[in-house]
Amino acid sequence: MAVMKVHGSPFSTSTQRVLACLYDKDVEFQFVNVDMGAGQHKSESFLSLNAIPAFEQGDLKLFESRAITQYIAQEYSDKGTQLLLPESNKTMALLQLWKEVEAHQFNPPSTKLVFELHYKPLFGMATDTAAVEENEAGLAKVLDVYEARLAQSKYLAGDHFTLVDLHHLPNAHYLMRSSAKKLFDSRPLVSAWVADITARPAWSKVLDLQKY
Amino acid sequence: MAVMKVHGSPFSTSTQRVLACLYDKDVEFQFVNVDMGAGQHKSESFLSLNAIPAFEQGDLKLFESRAITQYIAQEYSDKGTQLLLPESNKTMALLQLWKEVEAHQFNPPSTKLVFELHYKPLFGMATDTAAVEENEAGLAKVLDVYEARLAQSKYLAGDHFTLVDLHHLPNAHYLMRSSAKKLFDSRPLVSAWVADITARPAWSKVLDLQKY
Repeated sequence: MAVMKVHGSPFSTSTQRVLACLYDKDVEFQFVNVDMGAGQHKSESFLSLNAIPAFEQGDLKLFESRAITQYIAQEYSDKGTQLLLPESNKTMALLQLWKEVEAHQFNPPSTKLVFELHYKPLFGMATDTAAVEENEAGLAKVLDVYEARLAQSKYLAGDHFTLVDLHHLPNAHYLMRSSAKKLFDSRPLVSAWVADITARPAWSKVLDLQKY
Repeated sequence: MAVMKVHGSPFSTSTQRVLACLYDKDVEFQFVNVDMGAGQHKSESFLSLNAIPAFEQGDLKLFESRAITQYIAQEYSDKGTQLLLPESNKTMALLQLWKEVEAHQFNPPSTKLVFELHYKPLFGMATDTAAVEENEAGLAKVLDVYEARLAQSKYLAGDHFTLVDLHHLPNAHYLMRSSAKKLFDSRPLVSAWVADITARPAWSKVLDLQKY
């Protein structure tokens, strides 16, 4: 099988989502570091290799981090962490449900908070406190739902770590290092879950890539 | 296996997405019509049966239309239209990629256009022309990408109709009955694709539900 190539930036949360999956599956791949400062990623043409992260394996070209992780988890089901995609249709349905919740409910406010509280200060830009307040309120409601869910099962789709937990890694990591940490601290099950998933060796490997 | 129940409204595009899948798979289900006028769907608690569409089968409860369709397509792979979910990992990866494009690129502007051009006039509300202009411009860019894709394969994920084509049905249907039709008419491959998928008997059955 042709070598897997990932085009992206170790500082992009979407790229990190794909890298976390590759490390968790313990499969070989080639990382093509796209220089975000040079604006290569800003191209108008989405669905081109200028969009990051982009994935290539022979003639298969993929975009959209969550489509890439699903392909990797399916294609390499026997490698690394098992059951990133569960075997039963019922557990798979729960995974799909929580995947939608992550993409449509958790991701929008958390991405805005990471931008306001992590990236803007990093680039010397002023944080928009009204935007922070609004998105913290939005995220709090989502985390209430997570707290209730995690009272039923250790991970979102069931008893095992799956792709849907993995999808939360980048934003959860940065939020825990920001003032939004309080939203997690006040919810014990969500806190324990985030501590658990961010402690995975695969996630440390993703962060190590930022050192180069 | 326990009977499938769908809670929703025949006028909600997300509900229609699930109904189209059930009809295409030719499986029995019970439709629980939620009265949208009574505000039952406006509940704060998402991930409760007040959210529509909601799906129940015994103790399995699902939300999010695209998670529900995927479960139905997987669980009933041998019924009705075959290969709504393709068999090869590669074609499945393309389906996942285009599923993300539909959910994150096609759906936002098209949902806003359906609201402005279809629902608001229906309820005697004034259309926001600035919003229409902005979202038509956004949708035009997405449809350019679709026109290029459909030059490579008859359907989005390949040679066969799959779940990802089905996910476009509700919004595509209403847009073709609005002034946004021009965006489709000027793109011959997109036009032919929309005419093809909206002609499916399963889609007529969905619209028939509105007559009651």
